[in-house]
Amino acid sequence: MSENLREVVGRVLPAPENHLSPELLEQARKARRSFMAKALAMGAGAVAAGKAVAAPEGEDAILKLPEHTTGLGQPVAARGYGMPSKWEANLQRRESPGLTRVSQASVSFTPLQGLFGIITPSGLHFERHHQGWWDIDPSKHRLMIHGDDGLIKRPRVFTMDELMRLPSVSRIHFLECGANTAMEWGNVAVPTVQYTHGMCSCSEWTGVLLSTLLDMCGIDRKRAKYVLAEGADGSSMTRTIPIELALDDVIVAWGQNGEMLRPENGYPLRLIVPGVQAVSSVKYLRRIEVGDKPWGTKDESIHYIDLLPNGLHRQYSGIQECKSVITTPSGGQTLLDRGYYNISGLAWSGRGTIKAVDVSVDGGRTWRPARLEKPILPKAFTRFNFDWVWDGKPAILQSRAIDSTGYVQPKINQLRAVRGTRSIYHNNAIQSWLVSENGEVSNVQVY
Amino acid sequence: MSENLREVVGRVLPAPENHLSPELLEQARKARRSFMAKALAMGAGAVAAGKAVAAPEGEDAILKLPEHTTGLGQPVAARGYGMPSKWEANLQRRESPGLTRVSQASVSFTPLQGLFGIITPSGLHFERHHQGWWDIDPSKHRLMIHGDDGLIKRPRVFTMDELMRLPSVSRIHFLECGANTAMEWGNVAVPTVQYTHGMCSCSEWTGVLLSTLLDMCGIDRKRAKYVLAEGADGSSMTRTIPIELALDDVIVAWGQNGEMLRPENGYPLRLIVPGVQAVSSVKYLRRIEVGDKPWGTKDESIHYIDLLPNGLHRQYSGIQECKSVITTPSGGQTLLDRGYYNISGLAWSGRGTIKAVDVSVDGGRTWRPARLEKPILPKAFTRFNFDWVWDGKPAILQSRAIDSTGYVQPKINQLRAVRGTRSIYHNNAIQSWLVSENGEVSNVQVY
Repeated sequence: MSENLREVVGRVLPAPENHLSPELLEQARKARRSFMAKALAMGAGAVAAGKAVAAPEGEDAILKLPEHTTGLGQPVAARGYGMPSKWEANLQRRESPGLTRVSQASVSFTPLQGLFGIITPSGLHFERHHQGWWDIDPSKHRLMIHGDDGLIKRPRVFTMDELMRLPSVSRIHFLECGANTAMEWGNVAVPTVQYTHGMCSCSEWTGVLLSTLLDMCGIDRKRAKYVLAEGADGSSMTRTIPIELALDDVIVAWGQNGEMLRPENGYPLRLIVPGVQAVSSVKYLRRIEVGDKPWGTKDESIHYIDLLPNGLHRQYSGIQECKSVITTPSGGQTLLDRGYYNISGLAWSGRGTIKAVDVSVDGGRTWRPARLEKPILPKAFTRFNFDWVWDGKPAILQSRAIDSTGYVQPKINQLRAVRGTRSIYHNNAIQSWLVSENGEVSNVQVY
Repeated sequence: MSENLREVVGRVLPAPENHLSPELLEQARKARRSFMAKALAMGAGAVAAGKAVAAPEGEDAILKLPEHTTGLGQPVAARGYGMPSKWEANLQRRESPGLTRVSQASVSFTPLQGLFGIITPSGLHFERHHQGWWDIDPSKHRLMIHGDDGLIKRPRVFTMDELMRLPSVSRIHFLECGANTAMEWGNVAVPTVQYTHGMCSCSEWTGVLLSTLLDMCGIDRKRAKYVLAEGADGSSMTRTIPIELALDDVIVAWGQNGEMLRPENGYPLRLIVPGVQAVSSVKYLRRIEVGDKPWGTKDESIHYIDLLPNGLHRQYSGIQECKSVITTPSGGQTLLDRGYYNISGLAWSGRGTIKAVDVSVDGGRTWRPARLEKPILPKAFTRFNFDWVWDGKPAILQSRAIDSTGYVQPKINQLRAVRGTRSIYHNNAIQSWLVSENGEVSNVQVY
């Protein structure tokens, strides 16, 4: 740590609780104001009167030995599965009310503003359902692999048992909904990073490579051009995947962050198509068909397409381009005082690894490189951190990621010049957070 | 995949459910036997009588469209924190009954037999408490840093807010209790990998480096030799840590697998001492003292020491040496039939990265290299996988890890030659699983 940094960190004052509720935060603010007023008043009066100064409330409580230091705590669970602290009850995934007509076809967003590192806890992984979620009996679930015209020589139906005996891989990848950050296309600055970027999560996935299964079933590698993936839930989600991806790093996964998939994330079997919009990572996977042309299903003909300024639709544009966002401080949070802050955020690219992240605190006029945390993995979150001393003046915080292909995350006006303003999907623009003089952070668009 | 592998995988038969309860597994076995008997009987009779053969139970159920394919599922949570599938209710951390006199000073073990990859879900991270666990109010928690004789020039008390503003790091590290695999010293072959090796878990930790805090407080780097870490719970756990470690990769952590620490794992603040027995990763961390000699506290004088054959105790032997274990198949599981199996396991070293893992299926006579999954990180779990075709004869499965220092995981008799048989701690011997002809897997010791 530099001498300069050590000096400023030496003066830190209470920071925003990114893990406490707005109510608790407001209490903390009030307590601080009242404590300071009281301390000043008492100090002055007491000294004048020559009396001892009583410890203010709060400080007094700290001086008493707390129960946890003197008592016997909770036992280990004889049999159990742990949950977060009661003090973290505000850190939840949340639905955006009114976003869709029924909650079975809705979204709940990951609370990125309160998370650390690159692993998203499975209990907070974003949800996007098309006909609700199910908790399917794994002993009854099947995966069929087939293809016409000899594209699959040995069609086959697998049980979960059969799949889980096969050679497996474990890899950390992000999943991002194609519609993540959709509202920002149209100048609707939604208030928090949970709602701007929370349709993106990152997990360690375990399963068998799709290429292993296709080879087992005798795929004709010369003539096969596409595979179709189909889910078992009522929406019968179907997505076309180019054979180059299918034979590369696509996983037929049963494991998520060390344990079996969560029901909301496709238990007991989910396709993971790394780097591609998450709708292609079909949940409740029941069927893989091999073919020689795209299927043009409803979910790739009328949804997940980009309406361009010339009136045409761009289709099959599924790879999630390089993107980043500052998660702390971010919209809805408050800096309680000036001084040192660790700016922290996430970067990811559907095309490879993150090479660099730059951060600006003046709305993009100047940039400095952030520190990247290891591991830096392909098609996975990369955590970045950045030293900042806030002088109490308005500031605009931005991050800009560069991936291993050399691609630089664009500004929103650069994207709009090509894509117009009527898109829903695939917005990977630089995100701007305004820090006001009173410390409040809000979502602004900078051109 | 090799032609040979494709052939054998083409013939796989139902494998053990590593995620189902023994009851369900027994049901599945019975159903299979009864299905085959019934099918044979019915087939013979029906064909003789010229009647149509009714689909046997179970198969029939599969042919009907299940409810999840036709109905409307569960909605996204308006506000929620997800939980595992109801079908995974058997995958829990478990206490070893009678291991200690009270459950507040006991252990619950991670179910390694049902886990994948390298991340342990926080809800299944092993627990070891000395006076029970607490859910401490983070707004009241404090960390004090001090040292006599000018070893710390600016002693200081930090709030959580102040700590969480500081430059942070996120790193994946294992935590292993020094007493993990303790029962195997004395020839007590406990039945499952949950109980032999389940006091070991691996998480992504986020926090500020201890070195950053010590520099902020003005440590005298020339004269400081040790730090003492103290927890806030009733056991007042205190551990001496050499200054070389304290100034290297030790983290004062608030984050675990993306979210705040779990209460059982020290919420809101825990020291993480990578590579060292987990008792040094003091939970509910409240105090760091800098000194120039070891403190010799009760938890390092009468516990966590190794009784050697010559009657002397080995003290301060906290670094967890290179170790590995096969988690699937493992003790208590059953191979339902011969054929291909993916042998999977974990390797780790307190001294660096895993360089290689060899697997033997003949009790150590011959060894072949396993595939290592990426990322391979220092002082973290590394997942390995290995192709095996079981011919139905008895087999003894073993894994042997080699770390970046060149150290090779020893056999139990090699360890006993030096350390005797009266140790409790630091058993990193090769683990052996016997596969019997009936497919049952059990714990055996091979010399």
